[in-house]
Amino acid sequence: MSMNQTIDTILQHRSIRQFTDQAIDAELLSSLLDCAIAASTSSFIQCVSIIRVTQSDTRQKLAHLAGGQPYVETAAEFLVFCADFNRHQQIHPEAQLGFTEQTLIGAVDAALMAQNCLIAAESMGLGGVYIGGLRNNPEAVADVLALPQHVIPLFGLCLGYPSQNPEIKPRLPQSIIVHQEQYQQVLNQPELQNYDEEVREYYRTRTGGNKEMSWSEQITDALNKEARPFMKGFINSKGFSTK
Amino acid sequence: MSMNQTIDTILQHRSIRQFTDQAIDAELLSSLLDCAIAASTSSFIQCVSIIRVTQSDTRQKLAHLAGGQPYVETAAEFLVFCADFNRHQQIHPEAQLGFTEQTLIGAVDAALMAQNCLIAAESMGLGGVYIGGLRNNPEAVADVLALPQHVIPLFGLCLGYPSQNPEIKPRLPQSIIVHQEQYQQVLNQPELQNYDEEVREYYRTRTGGNKEMSWSEQITDALNKEARPFMKGFINSKGFSTK
Repeated sequence: MSMNQTIDTILQHRSIRQFTDQAIDAELLSSLLDCAIAASTSSFIQCVSIIRVTQSDTRQKLAHLAGGQPYVETAAEFLVFCADFNRHQQIHPEAQLGFTEQTLIGAVDAALMAQNCLIAAESMGLGGVYIGGLRNNPEAVADVLALPQHVIPLFGLCLGYPSQNPEIKPRLPQSIIVHQEQYQQVLNQPELQNYDEEVREYYRTRTGGNKEMSWSEQITDALNKEARPFMKGFINSKGFSTK
Repeated sequence: MSMNQTIDTILQHRSIRQFTDQAIDAELLSSLLDCAIAASTSSFIQCVSIIRVTQSDTRQKLAHLAGGQPYVETAAEFLVFCADFNRHQQIHPEAQLGFTEQTLIGAVDAALMAQNCLIAAESMGLGGVYIGGLRNNPEAVADVLALPQHVIPLFGLCLGYPSQNPEIKPRLPQSIIVHQEQYQQVLNQPELQNYDEEVREYYRTRTGGNKEMSWSEQITDALNKEARPFMKGFINSKGFSTK
């Protein structure tokens, strides 16, 4: 159902990984960054920094560190969203930092900002994709970006004019994501089986039959492996979640 | 500068804490939840659950647990966004869980979803406010919502039709939030002094002179205190960030 431009934009989201050469003009980029900054901030703490990377050698390094994602190099803009309590420590050297709560605030507030920026971009005909792959090598990323203590890189965001038009990837249905009053179990719900078949079909169409996995199969594969087991050590070393 | 409806909506964000009695009709609510679900999901993991709370006794409990925030009771809708790996464990009992990386993914993905929902709501004339106060008493909140192991409540979202029209609260300027190529220090920037004066003036106007604090003074106060020091123990007990 179409309600307005904003809702249409949001519902039509697909990650874009191929871009034309067109730059994002300075005025539009500035508006997108204003949109990011307009997001809610937990207790007015404003603990997010955005590093805008334009130099091609730095882009190349980050593309490599993210596990070889060429669009980090080719996108018109590449922004790295960081949780940042160094700013606060500069202002107040005795600030009590290192609390797990502050890591949560940093991650949540960075994502609120980034999503404002992406939705605004998409509403103007741009496309983008988040780069969680920066967390493959967070220490090297922090070095490249000269991130001091109390700053951690959370994810990147590629933005540019799309040169591809991928299908919308099906998501878990409301009946599974949204619980009424209290938490409800998902297992043995026919909705999950339907969704698994829908995902399988999505891949069948998209890959010409080369990949045919349900969502349940995919997350089973993904969660058989450790999830970036170095992350705890990394964020602790940067002064996050030590207490 | 006005660019389109979406950007205007985003730039005009103010948290709304007073609502009319008007309900959000089922079709609109369903669209807002579809918007939430349309957000990007890290590695297609989809590790977010939304608990929709309508029962007034539960709302009352949550308002109290959040530190006495009456709008949790009075908003037309109240949604609790949770990081959820229980769903994955139901599907794959041997799933490797407890990684700090998974906590970050949960917090980021929940916020991406929530911001889609809030922006969509605001674009339709609704207003809302995030309730981080749920993290004052996360264990009691988890009990009220019957959250099982591997699910943690991150924040709530009140939504409804506004009965107030507050000023937009000034945010740190781009010159401080956005860094070019590498991290830049903030101290001694005239932009920070200007911003501090702007915040002081905002409070002066809004409170009739009862509160006159700069941003630097506010964060100094806030960071003199421990930040929910029980959070690490809580999330560990729920199976998050144990490794």
